[in-house]
Amino acid sequence: MRRFAALILALSLCLGLNAQKGWYRDKTDPQPVINPDRTVTFRYYAPGADTVEVNGDFLSGKERPALMKNNGNGLWEYTTASPVQPEIYTYSYIVDNQKVLDPLNMFVWRNISDLYNVFIIPGERTENYQVRDVPHGTLNTVWYRSPSLQMNRRMVVYTPAGYENSRRKYPVLYLLHGMGGDETAWLDFGRAAQILDNLIAQGKAQPMIVVMPNGNPSQKAAPLENPDGYNLPLFYLPKTMDGTFEASFKDITSYVEKNYRTVRKKSGRALAGLSMGGFHSLYISANYPDLFGYVGLFSPAVTVQEEYKDNPIYRDMDLKWKAQFGKNPPLYWIGIGKDDPLYEDVASLRKKLDADSYRYTYHETEGSHVWTCWRIYLEEFSQILFR
Amino acid sequence: MRRFAALILALSLCLGLNAQKGWYRDKTDPQPVINPDRTVTFRYYAPGADTVEVNGDFLSGKERPALMKNNGNGLWEYTTASPVQPEIYTYSYIVDNQKVLDPLNMFVWRNISDLYNVFIIPGERTENYQVRDVPHGTLNTVWYRSPSLQMNRRMVVYTPAGYENSRRKYPVLYLLHGMGGDETAWLDFGRAAQILDNLIAQGKAQPMIVVMPNGNPSQKAAPLENPDGYNLPLFYLPKTMDGTFEASFKDITSYVEKNYRTVRKKSGRALAGLSMGGFHSLYISANYPDLFGYVGLFSPAVTVQEEYKDNPIYRDMDLKWKAQFGKNPPLYWIGIGKDDPLYEDVASLRKKLDADSYRYTYHETEGSHVWTCWRIYLEEFSQILFR
Repeated sequence: MRRFAALILALSLCLGLNAQKGWYRDKTDPQPVINPDRTVTFRYYAPGADTVEVNGDFLSGKERPALMKNNGNGLWEYTTASPVQPEIYTYSYIVDNQKVLDPLNMFVWRNISDLYNVFIIPGERTENYQVRDVPHGTLNTVWYRSPSLQMNRRMVVYTPAGYENSRRKYPVLYLLHGMGGDETAWLDFGRAAQILDNLIAQGKAQPMIVVMPNGNPSQKAAPLENPDGYNLPLFYLPKTMDGTFEASFKDITSYVEKNYRTVRKKSGRALAGLSMGGFHSLYISANYPDLFGYVGLFSPAVTVQEEYKDNPIYRDMDLKWKAQFGKNPPLYWIGIGKDDPLYEDVASLRKKLDADSYRYTYHETEGSHVWTCWRIYLEEFSQILFR
Repeated sequence: MRRFAALILALSLCLGLNAQKGWYRDKTDPQPVINPDRTVTFRYYAPGADTVEVNGDFLSGKERPALMKNNGNGLWEYTTASPVQPEIYTYSYIVDNQKVLDPLNMFVWRNISDLYNVFIIPGERTENYQVRDVPHGTLNTVWYRSPSLQMNRRMVVYTPAGYENSRRKYPVLYLLHGMGGDETAWLDFGRAAQILDNLIAQGKAQPMIVVMPNGNPSQKAAPLENPDGYNLPLFYLPKTMDGTFEASFKDITSYVEKNYRTVRKKSGRALAGLSMGGFHSLYISANYPDLFGYVGLFSPAVTVQEEYKDNPIYRDMDLKWKAQFGKNPPLYWIGIGKDDPLYEDVASLRKKLDADSYRYTYHETEGSHVWTCWRIYLEEFSQILFR
């Protein structure tokens, strides 16, 4: 036993450096605590703090941030006033006006330039967002050459369960992130791998490849994977909505069709994206009317900035739509939440499409410009693809 | 412009929820700040705090944690007393005895049950740890069936640059993590993908596949990817050093050899691991003397717990070594730091091997039971494989 004790000592040393003290020590239960009545209790230990608040999308706008109560021993607590609906939520603490993460929750996602703690209230809504004991697809993190951008760039390609053991060709969904996001966005907040794994396992979606590229042409890869350094990601990056990404998009489809067993025809290709990715999907699909049979615009940005209006990618949209819709694409899908600040832009897009009697599916939901909506849109959109 | 402003507003909304205030707003430079003389300055904004400290492995044991100085405006600062040697370092802040992460550094890795901020002092030492503009391998996050464990389990398989475009068969390095780690450990702290990308690009390592399984047989996958839930990972998990993993290891090699183009012979297989993974490598290679031509024990645990001494995996080691070394394996490599608490255990292992004149390579370095050593061992070990 002496020697085994030495091992445990050795291993503990690596941990000891930044280990937790006091109340946090030896805690192994998930935080926050989801109570049997589905209220949620948050606890933060900060004996010296004047105020501790908890902030997050589980609170209504009016409740945000919620002041926590010091129990007298330095442990601050807050329990939600009512049960929390099943969903994935993000939160953080604010200690004396300073945002901090929960030291007892390693479930941390990066969204653009911020880290968020995450918790799940399990229920019907989240069933497809969780990792389940079903056959899983493979996530391939690959680097491809973009001749147009003269760069090696990183993207993630999901191949469905069974891909490795078959000779079958699969249809492909190209799935684009929003402004400030990158090739990891749909995997963390978007739960794309879990949604596809679960829907395919249930027979509700066709087995498909899902390609998640980086839609910021100034970046080779997500911040911490970028050979250009470790700077914080900026929200509004150069070249994001100036036609560059749209014009280079065939570099991505070419790479995918060369390196994966894909159905190389229009009926085997879908393109969808959220917000800026919806903008990209709108203009890419219109510029290449023979490429994508299925198009999904999730809370899309629509309006081109004045300075780029003459870019060939954004010009002559009436002609381009005429060509695109004239070929009767099997699906042109638009989803948006009632409270989305882009609602009016989408309404004006619909007006244009309606004026020419172009056929599209319109899906209006509750909610705003948030991942809650985009996960639902992916879940719904992916089920009607490639039928 | 009005509509584009609406888009920016919409997108900003998603960010606003947990956005930073005050001093932190609009900061996009990497933190901490590496000064021209290679001293490092840390800044933490906490106007209400009584004490703020910074802790991390860039400090010597005596300096740890370092008290920061309040500049009077609530910004706490600390600059290292001397230049910091090129390496990858981890740190965190301690605010009134409470560990918190740096809100301005999204470079966060999980090691076992703790999150750490990371920074790099670039230099010769770190050249192979950084993402460089060289041809990159693909990281395949796959789920395989383990018939022995009756589980679907997750692992990461690195295929070298060029794998997709060739018909060549590649040798395979199986690379095992330590206690409390999982299939992600070698990727984050271990920089395995960067080290292999860079060494292969420089012609210093043979192109090889690197397989990083999860060595905890009670787990299907790393904590946040585990279908069994989102509990905090425990340091000492069940079944980690009781023979279970070693006995099930052929499930992994079988999967890899079925699904990847591999050199299916002893001279095309290497097995290495750190700490508990060194323990696994020691016993797996001895139990299957025809499987691995190359074995690497990085700061290995050696001693079997008393209660498992009679397990067939751990019994009759003299006979097993006789068979293993009798076949003249091309490389049996042992690396350990002079200050490692397992140093004596490794010395006793060497004494046994020496007594029977078994040939091995011994690499003694500065340092203790830390990732700093294991990255160096991987860098050195991978260059002498498959020659």
